Amino acid sequence: MSLFVTKDTPVTDSVLTVIAHLPTKSLSKTVEAGFFQKLSDADFMRIAVLLAQKSYDEGGCPIGGVVIDNATRQIMGKGHNTLVQENHPYNHGETSAIRDAGRIDFSKTTIFTTLSPCDVCATLIYMRQFARVVVGDVTSASGNEDMVRSKGVQVDILEDQMGIEIYSKYRAEKPDQDNEDWKGLAEVCKHHSH
Amino acid sequence: MSLFVTKDTPVTDSVLTVIAHLPTKSLSKTVEAGFFQKLSDADFMRIAVLLAQKSYDEGGCPIGGVVIDNATRQIMGKGHNTLVQENHPYNHGETSAIRDAGRIDFSKTTIFTTLSPCDVCATLIYMRQFARVVVGDVTSASGNEDMVRSKGVQVDILEDQMGIEIYSKYRAEKPDQDNEDWKGLAEVCKHHSH
Repeated sequence: MSLFVTKDTPVTDSVLTVIAHLPTKSLSKTVEAGFFQKLSDADFMRIAVLLAQKSYDEGGCPIGGVVIDNATRQIMGKGHNTLVQENHPYNHGETSAIRDAGRIDFSKTTIFTTLSPCDVCATLIYMRQFARVVVGDVTSASGNEDMVRSKGVQVDILEDQMGIEIYSKYRAEKPDQDNEDWKGLAEVCKHHSH
Repeated sequence: MSLFVTKDTPVTDSVLTVIAHLPTKSLSKTVEAGFFQKLSDADFMRIAVLLAQKSYDEGGCPIGGVVIDNATRQIMGKGHNTLVQENHPYNHGETSAIRDAGRIDFSKTTIFTTLSPCDVCATLIYMRQFARVVVGDVTSASGNEDMVRSKGVQVDILEDQMGIEIYSKYRAEKPDQDNEDWKGLAEVCKHHSH
């Protein structure tokens, strides 16, 4: 049986959406390895953005992450923020993708994140010794890029306009949810008690 | 129907083991609120240690955590490291208990952790604005206590000898697993390639 997505399938948002929604373990049964090998960094960032879009559509925080193997360019893990979906008080795009990847050697991988990593995710990225992190939005920045670089991780900025727009729209719509996702419900309660 | 554990039930390791093993949501159906109100900090630390023991018995890393409400002394969340059990590359005692608690205001809570928090957990504790953290083992220390204090969190040391012994035994038995849990599989691979 031939796979549905082959190395010759054109790279479109439609096919990247299928990849974003498929469980990671299902990718080897549905997508030819050669398809991933032709994807650019911007394409992997777009998959992370489509995961953010999925989360937005579910009422959640639109932040996504993708971990790839540097040698093979295959996806090792991916995910999106699940504050709302899992009632999860700290699962961001990066933690979600890293959890999905499981117990692998992250020093052979790159993580794509649609948003500048928070203090916790930035710390996890250097503690798990990632070779590289690619950030899709420093317009809404945490400013942790230099800290992560100082720990020996390569940090690249590759902004995705679609991701920036989704996050900016969400932030205007749900400022309390955004605040909780960043600094916890304590921060939201503090502001509302004034 | 009266609850099995009442405010008059003596505090023993046996009953604390039941509490450690029960799902958090089941506690209000099985344990009278008054029982928790009479527990000391050392008793909550012992529950965290019994969660560490559970993880050790499952072949995992013996580190546990418990989150309680400061006013009511009820347990809001608890858990243990799941590196092995969930193939989870960063779920420590603290992250496990915080995940279990869900979206609550952590500024009204205390977290008991059997082991000095790693960089990621220490960062999460101040980012979620915990009022207080109680550490059960600084003999095997990360040294993050001062950093967490500098962020405005009260840090208390309350060593539990049983917890220190379990962790120390485990470390001697499974040094690679301990190293992976702390610095990722990258660190283990680095050492083995020498």
